Amino acid sequence: MNLVLIDASELDDSGVVRLEGDRATHLTRVLRVVPGQQIRVGLVDGHAGLGTVIEPGPHAVTLRCVFTEEAVPIPAVDLLLALPRPKVLRRLWAQIAALGVRRVLLTNAERVERNYFDTHLLTPDIYRPLLLEGLQQARDTHVPLVSIHRQFRVLVEDVLDHEVGDALRLVADPAGASSVAAAINAAPTQRVLLAVGPEGGWNAFELDLLAAHRFRSVSMGARTLRVDTACVALLAIINEARQQD
Amino acid sequence: MNLVLIDASELDDSGVVRLEGDRATHLTRVLRVVPGQQIRVGLVDGHAGLGTVIEPGPHAVTLRCVFTEEAVPIPAVDLLLALPRPKVLRRLWAQIAALGVRRVLLTNAERVERNYFDTHLLTPDIYRPLLLEGLQQARDTHVPLVSIHRQFRVLVEDVLDHEVGDALRLVADPAGASSVAAAINAAPTQRVLLAVGPEGGWNAFELDLLAAHRFRSVSMGARTLRVDTACVALLAIINEARQQD
Repeated sequence: MNLVLIDASELDDSGVVRLEGDRATHLTRVLRVVPGQQIRVGLVDGHAGLGTVIEPGPHAVTLRCVFTEEAVPIPAVDLLLALPRPKVLRRLWAQIAALGVRRVLLTNAERVERNYFDTHLLTPDIYRPLLLEGLQQARDTHVPLVSIHRQFRVLVEDVLDHEVGDALRLVADPAGASSVAAAINAAPTQRVLLAVGPEGGWNAFELDLLAAHRFRSVSMGARTLRVDTACVALLAIINEARQQD
Repeated sequence: MNLVLIDASELDDSGVVRLEGDRATHLTRVLRVVPGQQIRVGLVDGHAGLGTVIEPGPHAVTLRCVFTEEAVPIPAVDLLLALPRPKVLRRLWAQIAALGVRRVLLTNAERVERNYFDTHLLTPDIYRPLLLEGLQQARDTHVPLVSIHRQFRVLVEDVLDHEVGDALRLVADPAGASSVAAAINAAPTQRVLLAVGPEGGWNAFELDLLAAHRFRSVSMGARTLRVDTACVALLAIINEARQQD
């Protein structure tokens, strides 16, 4: 936890917050804070700042917060992800947030098993704490927006243009024509919408539909990666390529 | 499983192997192989090839293998990794192998807890199947060499020169001076030795010792990542940068 995220509703009028639970435990047991100590804080979906420890304790820590720092930039990447199996999704939530994604659009696909949609990992009460964990690791404050799309075709034909605008659209495909970095370098200032398929890949209809909607296929080379490894790898490569500008 | 790895000792003189366990289960339940069907196979630490199904069955599958394809290139990256906690190490074994690493040198560091060295995940019987799982995912045949170094200073001062030669040495550090891609592009033909520290980072002595032994610090930007996310991200960026040549 490299930044403590605080929701605006938790603050009183003078910027004081009383933390309990995981955040308090981290401050007392790992950071071993003392009165007067300053720690990095961030307002959920807002600015970063500093919190001064007023009263540490075994079960609660009181902080006075000032959110003065510049706004944290909004991540430049949106992720269109074929819903992975629950075990993989659980691992991915925090990693996606840590790497920086503005929106996560979870979609159906032929090779997504129908019962994946029944998991409690698709309820905000479960995934939001995992997203916050990733943000606190990476010192970000922007909680990714999550939406679930059971109809792939409707998503691609009717939703994407409105929701993600004119981002550079990339679909990861081992048979892809270009490298990720080459595609990014050709359009360095644009936002990126990255599509990652299910284990086993998109089927031919899905790939054709994506291609017909301006998705350019990109490849990381000959090695086929598991979906969770591929997501982390692709997001890292995109971030790196965008920093070269 | 995109390639079935077979050990030379499992083959009879005519190239026939009888598979049981996970590999047989995958062939019968997932791929649903039939007699005469050809599947990708690979010889552990050797060539790739094709296996023809002779006899599928619920508990064993017999294949006739021919290893004719070109040798799979040996991965160009070695990884020097501060021993992570067991839960993280378990997740990393297959991912490291899938991304392609020739050697994994696990080391002590100030912020590595001593009891991490007691885990059964450091015994070959446990980690080798996890490495093979990653290789079979990525269609590689080269099992990473694993070594464990309890003395960081001895490793850096006395072992590295002999074991990894004149690779480009990079140490991941959020305060690093250059991007990973820039460092790779400056020495595109060299092998790479990547050092990844513990959660909380290397201490000042460790960073100084690495710098004194030709490690150049590289950063992925302002976001601090968990060790397992960072490993996958860095290996992916290195692979991508090397493919640009």
